[in-house]
Amino acid sequence: MSTVERTHTLTDAVLAELAGIVGPANLLVSDGDVEPYARDATPLFRARPDAVVLPTDTAQVSAVLALATRAGFPVIPRGGGSNLAAMTVAERGGVVMVLTRMNQIREISSDELLAVVQPGVTTAELADAAAAKGLLYAPDPGSRTVSTVAGNVATCAGGLRGLKYGVTRNYVLGLEAVLPTGEVIRTGSRLWKDVAGYDLTRLLTGSEGTLAVITEVTVALLPMPATVGTGVAYFDSLADAGTAVARIIGLGVLPATLEFLDNRCINAVEDSNHLGLDRTAGALLLFGDDGPDTHVATSLDRMAATCDVVGARAVTRARDVVESDALMAARRCSLPALARLAPITMLEDVTVPRPLLARMVDTIDTIAAQHHVVCATFGHAGDGNLHPTIVFDPHDGDARHRAEAAFDKVFHAAMDLGGTITGEHGIGAAKRPWMAARLGEDQLALLRRVKSAFDPAGILNPGKLGS
Amino acid sequence: MSTVERTHTLTDAVLAELAGIVGPANLLVSDGDVEPYARDATPLFRARPDAVVLPTDTAQVSAVLALATRAGFPVIPRGGGSNLAAMTVAERGGVVMVLTRMNQIREISSDELLAVVQPGVTTAELADAAAAKGLLYAPDPGSRTVSTVAGNVATCAGGLRGLKYGVTRNYVLGLEAVLPTGEVIRTGSRLWKDVAGYDLTRLLTGSEGTLAVITEVTVALLPMPATVGTGVAYFDSLADAGTAVARIIGLGVLPATLEFLDNRCINAVEDSNHLGLDRTAGALLLFGDDGPDTHVATSLDRMAATCDVVGARAVTRARDVVESDALMAARRCSLPALARLAPITMLEDVTVPRPLLARMVDTIDTIAAQHHVVCATFGHAGDGNLHPTIVFDPHDGDARHRAEAAFDKVFHAAMDLGGTITGEHGIGAAKRPWMAARLGEDQLALLRRVKSAFDPAGILNPGKLGS
Repeated sequence: MSTVERTHTLTDAVLAELAGIVGPANLLVSDGDVEPYARDATPLFRARPDAVVLPTDTAQVSAVLALATRAGFPVIPRGGGSNLAAMTVAERGGVVMVLTRMNQIREISSDELLAVVQPGVTTAELADAAAAKGLLYAPDPGSRTVSTVAGNVATCAGGLRGLKYGVTRNYVLGLEAVLPTGEVIRTGSRLWKDVAGYDLTRLLTGSEGTLAVITEVTVALLPMPATVGTGVAYFDSLADAGTAVARIIGLGVLPATLEFLDNRCINAVEDSNHLGLDRTAGALLLFGDDGPDTHVATSLDRMAATCDVVGARAVTRARDVVESDALMAARRCSLPALARLAPITMLEDVTVPRPLLARMVDTIDTIAAQHHVVCATFGHAGDGNLHPTIVFDPHDGDARHRAEAAFDKVFHAAMDLGGTITGEHGIGAAKRPWMAARLGEDQLALLRRVKSAFDPAGILNPGKLGS
Repeated sequence: MSTVERTHTLTDAVLAELAGIVGPANLLVSDGDVEPYARDATPLFRARPDAVVLPTDTAQVSAVLALATRAGFPVIPRGGGSNLAAMTVAERGGVVMVLTRMNQIREISSDELLAVVQPGVTTAELADAAAAKGLLYAPDPGSRTVSTVAGNVATCAGGLRGLKYGVTRNYVLGLEAVLPTGEVIRTGSRLWKDVAGYDLTRLLTGSEGTLAVITEVTVALLPMPATVGTGVAYFDSLADAGTAVARIIGLGVLPATLEFLDNRCINAVEDSNHLGLDRTAGALLLFGDDGPDTHVATSLDRMAATCDVVGARAVTRARDVVESDALMAARRCSLPALARLAPITMLEDVTVPRPLLARMVDTIDTIAAQHHVVCATFGHAGDGNLHPTIVFDPHDGDARHRAEAAFDKVFHAAMDLGGTITGEHGIGAAKRPWMAARLGEDQLALLRRVKSAFDPAGILNPGKLGS
């Protein structure tokens, strides 16, 4: 929970200026109207913003930011509000700037294999529009139906295809962005190869709305793979599943999907969705690939055979796209299934080197037992990105304290293994306490100097990401 | 040619300190010893550094930089010296820091699909060491046998596989780097997914040695493709070759290789290497792919058939790896072949959106004719990255002036088409005059503030990249 002191309230004069810039219909100030913007998807973090603006064009974004720098109030950019690290919570008050009214897909180009979209287009809308032209938008975060493209860029969102396709940063070609002082810049271009100047495109990607507000995004698209195949294997233990993953990659296969659920996740999903999963298995490994038919067939054959050799209890392959989608749904519903177990669901996001994945899950289980918390883990076995999830009832004594203490140990354990405190959700306010341990004081000081180079008045999402 | 005033000379006290840090054997000061470091591969740029240091570890790099910040002299990091934008020329005097004595491959991990190398390892050494373990280091700059990995990172080097595999930035996972003030930081990690903090890894990638000195690089590797196939097609015109490229990509094929030579390049290569190329063709298109056997066969079939349909004069496919390598050699020897035509070879590096490639080459030819210069163009048709090359004799009246005037028109023409002034060679000192036109004054001012956040004394490769 944020313990940052609220330091800003807006004067009537500032509110009047804001109304003049965005129009009264795009300014929210009443308790009821701003309440939905007091939280994002992060449990336990809440702060009422003084106002919410919903600009409809870049000029409005620029004018609001210039005013904020002049008057000295915080502006917190926000997309779909699906962030899990309290990245968009107005800890110090000020204005939440919601970009969802800038939601036009400007262009999908088959010739240039790219799309140009406004910030508030959702990931799924972009992916669907690309698919309609036979093109793939590869980044695939779990929040895709809710999260916005600019939000994905601001967090460098990952997802289920990281190993084969990389993450959001690999697809951002260019940005229009507004600096906190109001200048509009265009970084990058429509080109794959362009090294004119510092790579501000990638610097803004993952900058959590602390450096600039993204007002247009140009992303690379790929030809749509001809087909997709998926299979599922059950193992006695996560260690066995980890061995299978290592052997698959050792064969030179970089599949589109390699997801795992631990036993507790399997049971939560089965309780919730009744898919007929093996409740007694130590781990479920979902494997899949895409591409030309022959490639997918070969890839799936090799993965299934490897799982068998390693001693999988059972290996099943989807017979068609419908079965394939059903298997993927089992993975995608892990979080909602776990959320049914208790009122509070704390979903975390550590990454460790892939060969250490099973060891990290063992460590997580040990820590959970020591702290008497209920923890289930699922995640991306292909890229070592784990989502340990603790559920608890906030009225259960010191449950929250125990959960927080357990995660502190989990973060340090991940770092001890050469891992990191966040793979794809970001630092926001929630991970701030571990930034110095992760980056060191010298890099943290540098990070703050970079922040000042963009935002001399410190008005843009202040304090997030350690800024 | 640089017109920057030399502003620094080193005192004897500073030289003595440098000798104390790196050892006398790693400090060069005499005219003869420093002469090789007065130039890189860029014609017409030359400046004698006051001294050259060749550090052997990170502590020495740190001590030299801390001294430079304290004493206020420039330090210009240098790898293999193959840069084509005068990125490593000591325009203002000072110390050239050559990283080639830090040249150990620390680790090639098959499990984690990554390599950890010191800065002075050459691209080819890294690629060969990876290949020995069945792994591919994908970036493939033309300078690969000479250029260093850290030099590739500092320029975000591209190469012949950009369309399918991306460029250097897509493979850099983590860096050890020394700030101009001497602090050693570690950015990124060994992980594909890690969003803790600003993406300094990517900010340093392409920063041209103006922000920090890279002392260790962790890069991602891929499984080695099972096979490689290559073919060649001749067309009456580059427009026809461009049509073929567009149709190939329209089929959903993203091949590993799509390179072109214009008629003048074909003739220069044939004069030099006697490969039996068709001297009367308007364009040669080299196409190739890698991957599983069936994939490569299908991909080559589709590309060859498309070239035929578009009206290629002839389409030939390499029968084996030896023939494949021979075809690739035709492309790789374009620059040396052109260099035989006249004493000075100015190789340029614009990128335009791929569908505009043929139009850009037409424009280049028109500009060349207007300026009475001999210009040949080859490049990467897959990613729109062109290398127009002007050759001239410096004793031929105002030939140099005409070449420079022609390139000025070429750069503006590329920008007018939504393109850029450098796709993979960098800005350095050579492209500085076009930075404001490319990025705009607001972004250029921001770039300089970012530079100051890293380098408050302005000692690291000052003035390069517009910094």
